[in-house]
Amino acid sequence: MKKKLISEFLGTYFLIFAGTGAVVIDTITRSLTHVGVALTFGLVVMALIFTFGHLSGAHFNPAVTVGFFIHGDIKKREAIYYIIIQIIAGMAASLTLLGLLGNIASLGTTIPRGSWPQSFVLEFILTFFLMMVILGSAVHGRALKSFAGIAIGATVGLEAMFAGPISGASMNPARSIGPALVSGTTQHLWVYIVAPIIGASCAAIIYKILHEK
Amino acid sequence: MKKKLISEFLGTYFLIFAGTGAVVIDTITRSLTHVGVALTFGLVVMALIFTFGHLSGAHFNPAVTVGFFIHGDIKKREAIYYIIIQIIAGMAASLTLLGLLGNIASLGTTIPRGSWPQSFVLEFILTFFLMMVILGSAVHGRALKSFAGIAIGATVGLEAMFAGPISGASMNPARSIGPALVSGTTQHLWVYIVAPIIGASCAAIIYKILHEK
Amino acid sequence: MKKKLISEFLGTYFLIFAGTGAVVIDTITRSLTHVGVALTFGLVVMALIFTFGHLSGAHFNPAVTVGFFIHGDIKKREAIYYIIIQIIAGMAASLTLLGLLGNIASLGTTIPRGSWPQSFVLEFILTFFLMMVILGSAVHGRALKSFAGIAIGATVGLEAMFAGPISGASMNPARSIGPALVSGTTQHLWVYIVAPIIGASCAAIIYKILHEK
Amino acid sequence: MKKKLISEFLGTYFLIFAGTGAVVIDTITRSLTHVGVALTFGLVVMALIFTFGHLSGAHFNPAVTVGFFIHGDIKKREAIYYIIIQIIAGMAASLTLLGLLGNIASLGTTIPRGSWPQSFVLEFILTFFLMMVILGSAVHGRALKSFAGIAIGATVGLEAMFAGPISGASMNPARSIGPALVSGTTQHLWVYIVAPIIGASCAAIIYKILHEK
Repeated sequence: MKKKLISEFLGTYFLIFAGTGAVVIDTITRSLTHVGVALTFGLVVMALIFTFGHLSGAHFNPAVTVGFFIHGDIKKREAIYYIIIQIIAGMAASLTLLGLLGNIASLGTTIPRGSWPQSFVLEFILTFFLMMVILGSAVHGRALKSFAGIAIGATVGLEAMFAGPISGASMNPARSIGPALVSGTTQHLWVYIVAPIIGASCAAIIYKILHEK
Repeated sequence: MKKKLISEFLGTYFLIFAGTGAVVIDTITRSLTHVGVALTFGLVVMALIFTFGHLSGAHFNPAVTVGFFIHGDIKKREAIYYIIIQIIAGMAASLTLLGLLGNIASLGTTIPRGSWPQSFVLEFILTFFLMMVILGSAVHGRALKSFAGIAIGATVGLEAMFAGPISGASMNPARSIGPALVSGTTQHLWVYIVAPIIGASCAAIIYKILHEK
Repeated sequence: MKKKLISEFLGTYFLIFAGTGAVVIDTITRSLTHVGVALTFGLVVMALIFTFGHLSGAHFNPAVTVGFFIHGDIKKREAIYYIIIQIIAGMAASLTLLGLLGNIASLGTTIPRGSWPQSFVLEFILTFFLMMVILGSAVHGRALKSFAGIAIGATVGLEAMFAGPISGASMNPARSIGPALVSGTTQHLWVYIVAPIIGASCAAIIYKILHEK
Repeated sequence: MKKKLISEFLGTYFLIFAGTGAVVIDTITRSLTHVGVALTFGLVVMALIFTFGHLSGAHFNPAVTVGFFIHGDIKKREAIYYIIIQIIAGMAASLTLLGLLGNIASLGTTIPRGSWPQSFVLEFILTFFLMMVILGSAVHGRALKSFAGIAIGATVGLEAMFAGPISGASMNPARSIGPALVSGTTQHLWVYIVAPIIGASCAAIIYKILHEK
């Protein structure tokens, strides 16, 4: 259990450090462009799954942990520890960026570009399909499980690419809580907590109904 | 059969939601650039093949289903159901984008940049080689089948990259029918139905002649 | 043998159609950018290796065929047929682009940006390491051979990315002969025939000395 | 041993030739953009791991060699030879670029954009996680070792992408020593020697404590 939590801490920390760091550094230097930010998110998720997947399952995301709990892949107690450590890791990443680069771009906080219901629906859809890809590529009995890191990293990367400019493409409460609390930009934070958790939960429920009877 | 059709629906829906969503959101925000749109198409196809390939074969494309039918990999009745569900999924994706973002950029409808015969020939060539890659990487007896998702996703991505600015790089009737009907931009729609189906069919016929005697 | 030559024709045709097509279409539409052109070259090589590698070895490049001949992996007679069909395929690709898009950007002909010796040395180095990657990832007894398509596609992509703006990053006589002859831009063509062949040959000789005694 | 050192020389040479070459050629032609430079670094590392991993372990980086030494994967004497040959290879790559392109952009020397402590901390974090990914994806007993090249290449690519604009994202003393000495830009060179070595060492120590008791 200790190893699993250290693995979740390190993975979530680096996912949020690199991903939101890309947002902040692009704001400072105007060199990454949105394409570079999205690729950073996708590549870091892929690399971390190959690094920590065999240790903790490589959730790095409270919505995914809730999805796995509903699908029956993790016990309640462990899920709660996972979520707590993920949120702590996200805050630690944001604090590191604050110390290194200053309070720029709200440390990469996700903010709706238009109305909040628009971003809520988008985050729901994004996390629904992220959880579908996770269950279909990493959990399903006939899946090519060794390729799951590639499939899941690609999904995070492409969702950040196309949906980032509208909702921020969080799909991950820990990724949104860290920057929001540390930078003090909490107005729409609830959107990025509630929508991803509902999205991942719906995916887990539908997947369970379809495959486990 | 029900599971297969749900799998085709979900996969085609998300392929078209993400891909044409990228076109629409790039038009609204000017942040993805053409490179980001093309990468979105390639990555979503790759991720979905690893997610749904072991469930439905991951066609997501009426031209590909026709190609598989000609090559002898799917029965007529099942192929017809696949094509119907793919077209419904494409329309559902376009309706979702219409609701979320409004009728912008004709919801990502494919339109010839120059003359329609130019786009017709291009779509024929694109789909011919897409079907070749599918048969060579996922069906051939000596293929490294577990890598097929990477090869096919790469093909969709690179064809969208180089040919997208001329013909839209549809290669997929469902991907063109959804946005065209929902946005009411149907002038050249037939090009994107006929050319891909002929392209995929030719590839299947040539592949059959070469390999199955 | 017939199947191998058809495989080499189709693969080389599509490699050069997509890659030089990207150059031409970027000149017409200014939408791919150099990054998109380089990614097209890398992705098409990767996809074609997974499609045709088990049929013909997926050379698609006279310099690579010479390298394999020197390394002892292909017989003289077969190598000559391979090279002839590769050159024909390259010319067919350029003729298709000429018919579809007109004689724009010299159909993607490679031309030295600075002096020809600069491009000669660069093409030598590029093809030397391309052949090294091919031998190390696809031929060596302990190589993870199933990943060779990824390694080789990545190499073509990154070499096109960093060296394309100086020498055109041909590494492939067939890729340069087709556009040069069809567009009538043959001044520096010899550079892109001689340098890649010497580069691939040197790699094959060094690899042989190191590993096959 | 001789084969290992030749493998380390060739791999490190091409890694630094391609990566810093991308920086120089982008400065000359303004066509790669930062995204293209970062992709070049990531792809070359991936390709070289599949090419030389089974020969020398594909370190190409004195900090990584120190990390492997601390973790107990390489003997002291061999590690010293590795580091010497890596530094020689980096200087040879910079000399080649000097001869081909002139002393432009300090041959791709890494220089802190802001204060040196900022870049020191960033290089520490980058190399810490690079070494974590290496140990987790390529060394750990339950790792999907054949995918290590993809995970490690992705890590170098994404770290170059997000952190390059601030510190240069060296993570590799050989990659910084070559351009600095050959171009005569040595003011902050020590940062790029000390921080990566400490970062990789800390990762190796923590990994050892966690997994090897």
